[in-house]
Amino acid sequence: MKKNNSLEPSVPVAYQGEPGAYSEAALLEFFQGNVTAFGKNSFEDVFEAVESGACKFGFIPIENSLAGSIHRNYDLLREHSLFIIGETSLRVQHCLIANPGVKKEQIRIVQSHPQALEQCRGYLNRWPEVTAEPVYDTAGAVKLLSDTHDQTTAAIASHRSAEIYHMDILAEGIEDNPANFTRFLVLAPQPVDPGKDAKTSIVVSLHNQPGSLFKALSVFALRDIDLTKLESRPLIGLPGQYLFYIDFAGSIQDEPIKRALNHLEEYAAMLRVLGSYPRHRM
Amino acid sequence: MKKNNSLEPSVPVAYQGEPGAYSEAALLEFFQGNVTAFGKNSFEDVFEAVESGACKFGFIPIENSLAGSIHRNYDLLREHSLFIIGETSLRVQHCLIANPGVKKEQIRIVQSHPQALEQCRGYLNRWPEVTAEPVYDTAGAVKLLSDTHDQTTAAIASHRSAEIYHMDILAEGIEDNPANFTRFLVLAPQPVDPGKDAKTSIVVSLHNQPGSLFKALSVFALRDIDLTKLESRPLIGLPGQYLFYIDFAGSIQDEPIKRALNHLEEYAAMLRVLGSYPRHRM
Repeated sequence: MKKNNSLEPSVPVAYQGEPGAYSEAALLEFFQGNVTAFGKNSFEDVFEAVESGACKFGFIPIENSLAGSIHRNYDLLREHSLFIIGETSLRVQHCLIANPGVKKEQIRIVQSHPQALEQCRGYLNRWPEVTAEPVYDTAGAVKLLSDTHDQTTAAIASHRSAEIYHMDILAEGIEDNPANFTRFLVLAPQPVDPGKDAKTSIVVSLHNQPGSLFKALSVFALRDIDLTKLESRPLIGLPGQYLFYIDFAGSIQDEPIKRALNHLEEYAAMLRVLGSYPRHRM
Repeated sequence: MKKNNSLEPSVPVAYQGEPGAYSEAALLEFFQGNVTAFGKNSFEDVFEAVESGACKFGFIPIENSLAGSIHRNYDLLREHSLFIIGETSLRVQHCLIANPGVKKEQIRIVQSHPQALEQCRGYLNRWPEVTAEPVYDTAGAVKLLSDTHDQTTAAIASHRSAEIYHMDILAEGIEDNPANFTRFLVLAPQPVDPGKDAKTSIVVSLHNQPGSLFKALSVFALRDIDLTKLESRPLIGLPGQYLFYIDFAGSIQDEPIKRALNHLEEYAAMLRVLGSYPRHRM
């Protein structure tokens, strides 16, 4: 956490996970200075912390370049009435972490979240002396190692989790695919003015008619509005009906975007603007 | 496995997982009769088993209604040259499974894959006496219980895994959201004639130009071809470039579809037809 030089109280921000989680690292990078990160048990608890006013902002992952969109968080965005006010991306870099002084040759077990183990499968396969053991949480695995002073087990987790628990990093960047990015959203009870280089996220469902998606996209194409994300998700129990996640360049305060969304409402069974926010460029 | 009344040798089919995995259950339902299911360690091993001729078909999950598309398998479809020759859907119903004779009151620990535990979170929260413990695999958790004769631990896994290991089912359908479906694809080295009610899957990347997606979709809309899936996925390292997964009604043997794909090639940086196959209707 950054040093607080002002007399202002630190801004409380909610995320899901333990200290040292990738979400926490991304959050601290995004906000830079004067914030306090509160780790919650679930994504739902993050939304509730912001709605109740306990936290000023929420910080949630929305998609990963390898694992895809996190539908659970799209569902929570629809169920709650918070606004997206920012976005950021974090490159996920996994570290091999052990108790201070432990050498790599001593390690026989490597623990982490199953997804992190899977993302380091090539690295682990080239190391036949060790067994991979799944645990609930990447940062939680580091905490457990620190508590037990285990000398033959290592964890796969973030650089930051090693710092928090004063552990050694035996190897860094051990993920098989370096193109491993997670995109995060910042949530607040009120929208913001997104400035000039803005992006907008909407969720829309269309009437089940031939060509309905084509018509829906025409409202953007006819106004030269640039789409940055488009994803269909089947609505279970409603055959042939889809929910669409659409991100596009621009703000809902721009006149062409206002017109495009008015036009889109002619085709939409449901349309929800999740927010306009400053665009993050990698 | 169904009884084999013929003298034909059983057809070998590869899937990822242990006996009792949801993939195995879906595979046996899809093929009905004369198949032998071979559980592989990884999705890559499934593709290789079909390419080498060791198995006649491969069977892979491609999307889940709660968790989304399995990008890893889309990547493997692009890297390998197998064809999609069929699809099916399985409703994922989780069971609470214990050793024979064990009562629910005795249970103190519930083990399963983290995703299955997450999908039963409501059920577990209403049962404060137990602790959830993540393990690598749903069916693997049942096998372990069976081996150890543990009387105070239960597993969350498929109905079929309880049958395989002769275990008791203490509760069924314990998932919080009943709209939990996984879609599977059947893979083979050669394409099939998909018949009248067909579906086709393609992967396409477009030149990075304004309106390129709209133009791409026009090739379908202008010919009244019905899209059933559309998903964009950012190409990491190539800002603004996307890969699109598109499913549509019809077969590549149909004249309008041939023309639409020829037309699409005018806008596409890359176009790959993954296969035409009989459509599965839920």
